[in-house]
Amino acid sequence: MVKKLVNDPHSFVEDSLRGFARAHADLVAVESNIVIRRTPKPEGKVGIISGGGSGHEPLHAGFVGVGMLDAAVPGAVFTSPTPDPILAATTAADHGAGVVYLVKNYTGDVLNFDTAAELSELSGIEVRQVLIDDDVAVEDSLYTAGRRGVAGTFLVEKVVGASAERGDSLDEVVAIAERAVANVATMGLALAPCTVPHAERASFDLADDEIELGVGIHGEPGRRTAPMATADELTDQLFDAVQEELALTAGERVVVLVNGLGATPLAELYIVFARVAQRLDELGVQLVRSHVGDVVTSLDMAGVSVTLLRVDDELLDLYDAPACTPAFRR
Amino acid sequence: MVKKLVNDPHSFVEDSLRGFARAHADLVAVESNIVIRRTPKPEGKVGIISGGGSGHEPLHAGFVGVGMLDAAVPGAVFTSPTPDPILAATTAADHGAGVVYLVKNYTGDVLNFDTAAELSELSGIEVRQVLIDDDVAVEDSLYTAGRRGVAGTFLVEKVVGASAERGDSLDEVVAIAERAVANVATMGLALAPCTVPHAERASFDLADDEIELGVGIHGEPGRRTAPMATADELTDQLFDAVQEELALTAGERVVVLVNGLGATPLAELYIVFARVAQRLDELGVQLVRSHVGDVVTSLDMAGVSVTLLRVDDELLDLYDAPACTPAFRR
Repeated sequence: MVKKLVNDPHSFVEDSLRGFARAHADLVAVESNIVIRRTPKPEGKVGIISGGGSGHEPLHAGFVGVGMLDAAVPGAVFTSPTPDPILAATTAADHGAGVVYLVKNYTGDVLNFDTAAELSELSGIEVRQVLIDDDVAVEDSLYTAGRRGVAGTFLVEKVVGASAERGDSLDEVVAIAERAVANVATMGLALAPCTVPHAERASFDLADDEIELGVGIHGEPGRRTAPMATADELTDQLFDAVQEELALTAGERVVVLVNGLGATPLAELYIVFARVAQRLDELGVQLVRSHVGDVVTSLDMAGVSVTLLRVDDELLDLYDAPACTPAFRR
Repeated sequence: MVKKLVNDPHSFVEDSLRGFARAHADLVAVESNIVIRRTPKPEGKVGIISGGGSGHEPLHAGFVGVGMLDAAVPGAVFTSPTPDPILAATTAADHGAGVVYLVKNYTGDVLNFDTAAELSELSGIEVRQVLIDDDVAVEDSLYTAGRRGVAGTFLVEKVVGASAERGDSLDEVVAIAERAVANVATMGLALAPCTVPHAERASFDLADDEIELGVGIHGEPGRRTAPMATADELTDQLFDAVQEELALTAGERVVVLVNGLGATPLAELYIVFARVAQRLDELGVQLVRSHVGDVVTSLDMAGVSVTLLRVDDELLDLYDAPACTPAFRR
């Protein structure tokens, strides 16, 4: 049995959000479990919303604030939020210039954000949706038609938030989002499974000498169970899968994200990052920015994902733009 | 067996620091495993150094930078650094105004920083040492005469770094450090043990229905093994121990740190924080600032610690002062 710091599994998200709201009252307000940025630009800013099942903290609530999201809509653990709170968040995030939904590609999320978009349009708010499907591990999966949205979401939220913050129009923000999604790819692996607060047991089984290569952020299967190996060998498997997708060539520039899935020590993430940097050096690809840490987790899963975002001058400027949120500042 | 992202357990720290150096090359330089701030104030700034065994990341290397440490000296995992690198760090951190060592109270660290201080004095650098012993769990322990230094170290490094940054003299910086140490207290608990990279097995055993109350950050024993309970009940045990030490009264102000020990999801830390906030409210103590996250970890241990720092106007100003380090910015 995995022990957890929980009062009641059924109020897990609410109890956590209460603490989150108190800790970050200077940056966000939490109303009916919707997390809303305290200091929106008043008029003419495109609103940016994301959301999805809880259990991936700090995503998404941790990225609400100046330069990133206007609102986040957390669902129950690993469960999509329903259309009603998404609609409420849309109303809160609308400043007369329309709202963009950044939706991780899971069937439940897609359906519920779709419905919320329709309802929002009926109430006179223009909504555009961009699907994030950065996980190169599998084409379809337990919860997805098409690829899944995973850690690359953090980078997409960063550049899209910056685009809206500098005053881009709805069309321009959507174009940035689509360009970011087209140039980001992620692959992850699990060393040990996660356990959801109301479950009796772990989400899957792994032998002592096995990893799950291409694991999803809900513990859903990846490409295959593979033998445990050194950090460099495992990193190479992640890197190769990402590089197969992006086909980076010498002289191109990338932002690297090495993301911990929850229970993996930071020191280990830096070992993975060192190998990613080495591989990029060997290709002649410029590693222009990096982030190493837990941004899109899977509760207490042990593991890591590697994300590369190919950037041009504009995407890099947007990545570098100021942000002030509970979980990310620059 | 706990699986780890490791190439060779014997080069664990070096491999990790190589990635750390690459990821944060704008902020720090790593030379012979010593982490040095890239942008020191040239002359007249008191140098601030800390260090200790690795395995507690982001401590200490993650807090090197403007407004916090001038240098960090990581030892092997859970092993004090030797005097030589501490001496080298002292030379790097000295800008003619003397150097302060912030030393977590463990026997090995105390001895080695002592020796380095003597050697530094011989080479003409004035060194002052401040022991951090915030852990109220036990008086003496496996590795300590007196109380241990744990998560409160982060808060001490923050206010002391700010004191040096604003130009305080050596005496003034030491006075701030001593005032911070006198007003900070921590208590932690483990839900599950950690495993060091070169070990065959976990650092201690816990049954499915047990926690270690007052655990040390190396997995050393705390006050006792206690029954698993709800998050609020467990938080109360931590809070009561800290409050017994600080004896906070209505109207006083505190900075709260809820620190994850490595494998505990952020969502759970916010549940603990919510309870701490409630307890402070009931006492009429003002929760003026907070930090929720992993700052002083114990590899992949699952658990949490609660730290309170009683602040006056000056300590609060120092806590609020700018900082730009790999792991903490404001």
